[in-house]
Amino acid sequence: MNEKLSDTGRKAMLDPLFATGWALVEGRDAIRKTFQFSDFVEAFGFMTKVALYAEKWNHHPEWTNVYNRVEVTLTTHDVDGLSSLDAKLARKLDALCEAMHGGA
Amino acid sequence: MNEKLSDTGRKAMLDPLFATGWALVEGRDAIRKTFQFSDFVEAFGFMTKVALYAEKWNHHPEWTNVYNRVEVTLTTHDVDGLSSLDAKLARKLDALCEAMHGGA
Repeated sequence: MNEKLSDTGRKAMLDPLFATGWALVEGRDAIRKTFQFSDFVEAFGFMTKVALYAEKWNHHPEWTNVYNRVEVTLTTHDVDGLSSLDAKLARKLDALCEAMHGGA
Repeated sequence: MNEKLSDTGRKAMLDPLFATGWALVEGRDAIRKTFQFSDFVEAFGFMTKVALYAEKWNHHPEWTNVYNRVEVTLTTHDVDGLSSLDAKLARKLDALCEAMHGGA
């Protein structure tokens, strides 16, 4: 079962994500990051890769796409807050983005 | 060149869309509709189809996906408002959704 992050777990999981541009969302126990690409093809290509992992891990982002930008919010509805799944998916998004254009 | 809808053009283009659930966005010259599917696979499948037309027609939606829901906003940045391209893309979205599950 997935569990809400403990106070110590939070720090260990979230600090590295804050370092790559993720930030806490105001008023919710969630994290958010905006990914930028050269155009829509790149942005939607990224979303397609993310979608496959999201479905495989049964953990889906809340996300908005406007042309070359993808704003992703992660939280775990089951536990009403952040869980280790959010950190895992966040790290995967960073890796997928990095692989596409060598930087977030 | 794409042009902003005239007053008569607006009515002819938009009335049929209002009938299928599209609505004007407050404070912007844009239209919005929320599409609902059975799950993420269906929702992202819909988005993937839309993405191909969006790129082909060089007209991209602003859209948000949360699991089985896709909220789409259409406007034409070039003309700072609604153009016939928005109506064309809106009709395509309706048709793609209809083809997937027989209803919006």
